[in-house]
Amino acid sequence: MLCLILQQNSTNRMPSVSNKGLEMPPSPIRKLTPYADKAKQEGKHIYHLNIGQPDIDTPQIMLDAIKNIDFKVWAYTPSEGTASYRGKLSSYYNKLGYAITPNDILVTNGGSEAITIAMQACINPGEEIIIPEPFYANYNGFACSAGIKIKPILSYIADGFALPPISEFEALITKNTKAIAICNPNNPTGYLYSRQELEALRDLCLKYDLFLLSDEAYREFCYDGREFISPMHLAGLEQHVIVLDTVSKRYSACGARLGCMITKNKEVWRTALKFAQARLSPPAVAQIAAEAAIDTPQSYFDAVKAEYTARRDVLVAGLNGIKGVYCPNPGGAFYVVAQLPIDDADSFCQWILEHFEYQNQTVMMAPASGFYSTSNAGRNEVRLAYVLNANDLNKALLCLEKGLEAYPGRTATA
Amino acid sequence: MLCLILQQNSTNRMPSVSNKGLEMPPSPIRKLTPYADKAKQEGKHIYHLNIGQPDIDTPQIMLDAIKNIDFKVWAYTPSEGTASYRGKLSSYYNKLGYAITPNDILVTNGGSEAITIAMQACINPGEEIIIPEPFYANYNGFACSAGIKIKPILSYIADGFALPPISEFEALITKNTKAIAICNPNNPTGYLYSRQELEALRDLCLKYDLFLLSDEAYREFCYDGREFISPMHLAGLEQHVIVLDTVSKRYSACGARLGCMITKNKEVWRTALKFAQARLSPPAVAQIAAEAAIDTPQSYFDAVKAEYTARRDVLVAGLNGIKGVYCPNPGGAFYVVAQLPIDDADSFCQWILEHFEYQNQTVMMAPASGFYSTSNAGRNEVRLAYVLNANDLNKALLCLEKGLEAYPGRTATA
Repeated sequence: MLCLILQQNSTNRMPSVSNKGLEMPPSPIRKLTPYADKAKQEGKHIYHLNIGQPDIDTPQIMLDAIKNIDFKVWAYTPSEGTASYRGKLSSYYNKLGYAITPNDILVTNGGSEAITIAMQACINPGEEIIIPEPFYANYNGFACSAGIKIKPILSYIADGFALPPISEFEALITKNTKAIAICNPNNPTGYLYSRQELEALRDLCLKYDLFLLSDEAYREFCYDGREFISPMHLAGLEQHVIVLDTVSKRYSACGARLGCMITKNKEVWRTALKFAQARLSPPAVAQIAAEAAIDTPQSYFDAVKAEYTARRDVLVAGLNGIKGVYCPNPGGAFYVVAQLPIDDADSFCQWILEHFEYQNQTVMMAPASGFYSTSNAGRNEVRLAYVLNANDLNKALLCLEKGLEAYPGRTATA
Repeated sequence: MLCLILQQNSTNRMPSVSNKGLEMPPSPIRKLTPYADKAKQEGKHIYHLNIGQPDIDTPQIMLDAIKNIDFKVWAYTPSEGTASYRGKLSSYYNKLGYAITPNDILVTNGGSEAITIAMQACINPGEEIIIPEPFYANYNGFACSAGIKIKPILSYIADGFALPPISEFEALITKNTKAIAICNPNNPTGYLYSRQELEALRDLCLKYDLFLLSDEAYREFCYDGREFISPMHLAGLEQHVIVLDTVSKRYSACGARLGCMITKNKEVWRTALKFAQARLSPPAVAQIAAEAAIDTPQSYFDAVKAEYTARRDVLVAGLNGIKGVYCPNPGGAFYVVAQLPIDDADSFCQWILEHFEYQNQTVMMAPASGFYSTSNAGRNEVRLAYVLNANDLNKALLCLEKGLEAYPGRTATA
């Protein structure tokens, strides 16, 4: 047997991938794609609630900027982004009260790169970052890639996923703790942190001298008249805050791959620049378009917010109307995390694509397990993005309801 | 004194950046930018030979594709790139004889991301990759970021930077060695590897079961009728080769930030996909434009190659005409590494920006030290990119000659 194995090796040798590569988690948002593709090939219509890809039109002013490009050479830009874009972008943030200069901004390849650069610039391999969970699933991938450890703190669906008590953060802090990260409004829960919660985090970060990474991809999407508060609004935290942002959701421009990192901590900024220089430049056309997009009229955002509010209301009411399902009503972003009467959301989300259809339709959802780092947490939860119109949402809800009735692994309903 | 320091800390506390961030090398190509900016503010004209930003026009067919975009929503693409682009891109490679399928391609945020993903997917932190030096400076940054070790092997200007003897590679191989990387045609030396050299590398990779990373950013730029050979052309190496590519130089589209990784090793591809999924998507508009660019007529490349050949001839002849300067004649890419009669190229390249002008002009070069990982290697060498027209190159050469005459740190000339 050993002999056979050796023989196979010698005829079919190949070097092996890295352990890091093996440990790298697949995206919970995209890992079911092969099942969705197969379902589509079988002629099923799929309602995609798995991914935060809005169906909202990109602002015309942004699309026009692409069409009006007039360069002859599609050249690199400075590694930190063009002076022109950073200048205009700082005016956007200063209207929000961030009191920054263009030199506090580092333009990145999407919000993703802003997160990876901030992690790498601030946290050594083996050191720790505390993040309330569920959290944006790809933080796991970025942390794996950077070799840093996420220390999760459970937030609970029964509390609407509010910030866990500060005492729980404090209990996790060790000499290896370098940072706390939040996503506000939260992906995946939609929870909008209050000023009080952020002030408590500020005091904690100052007490233990921790960085506070603030992922604000969904800043524009706060509902019911509620106010968005950033750590950038809190005095005393200037050297500790790193804002991570993207144009993806703000302008429905996910494919632009343009984000930024903002910090008033000059040592962090200069260190981040070295990582940015290694990859040379963020995308040039996207910077031209995003600069134009800063003049998007308020009426665009008002309409988008009204649309998302209406969708959220449809989705949350619809989910809570299904027997055994519970979904809190979130204050921001365009996601909800719902608890389903099932054994295991990974199995259910695959099953509903693979073995179910209602009137030749089904629904794709992201199992919440991938948004937790604690094993077995959120096993009966899914993340749903309300990126479809109300009519499609209602059809998706009907598929979900019928699917739950038919699913062999359903549990006793509440 | 200690007391004072403590007091400063308590009034001005801030968390510190990571050791990795401190160790991350600044870009030797861009680190002198502040001196260049200052020289420009003083009214000096600067000839930029420091960076591989071609002045060649991007193909019109590519620019038109940008202007003709017709989407309403600037959406994510699949993490691995669009099916349409990968399909067309595979036809480009198959014309070169790579015998690949679209499923062997992973589209990336520039060639930079192709390199980082390949390194992370294949090599664990602490493991080693062997690279002939001088090598593309940012490999140092990518390796630092991934926590892997580069084991350099010196190649010599006297040999035109040919591949060092295989015995030198073999002497460096340990149980921690996972890969060999080459850049062909080479950045920074312009050296074009021969079939014989590549076959020797193939045999070595097979003998020790190592990955062979082949950075082919400059594939289109081979001169004097010489043939480009890729490891993809060599039988037996299918599971070992990872090609790293970009549209940046091929179409003078550095700002597109679009590259790709190609491998027939399915385990590597699937592992790389997980890193790609974490950052969601490569840029959408760039994929549309690069797909159109594949139909760029051969006449475009013929004209570009003729132009670069003429510039190379001007630059190499001009350099060798300056007393004490030596520059080999490279077979590809658009760089040369030249040896100057100076004490230290880092000092000289800063000095010529900061303290020198000839007829109110000066020249920006990349000190070669950043392209070596062996300390003190290449101290009297610079990398020059021939990305300016022949007239400007001649003016830059004159600045360099006059600068060398005036430089306080010049050495006895050869």
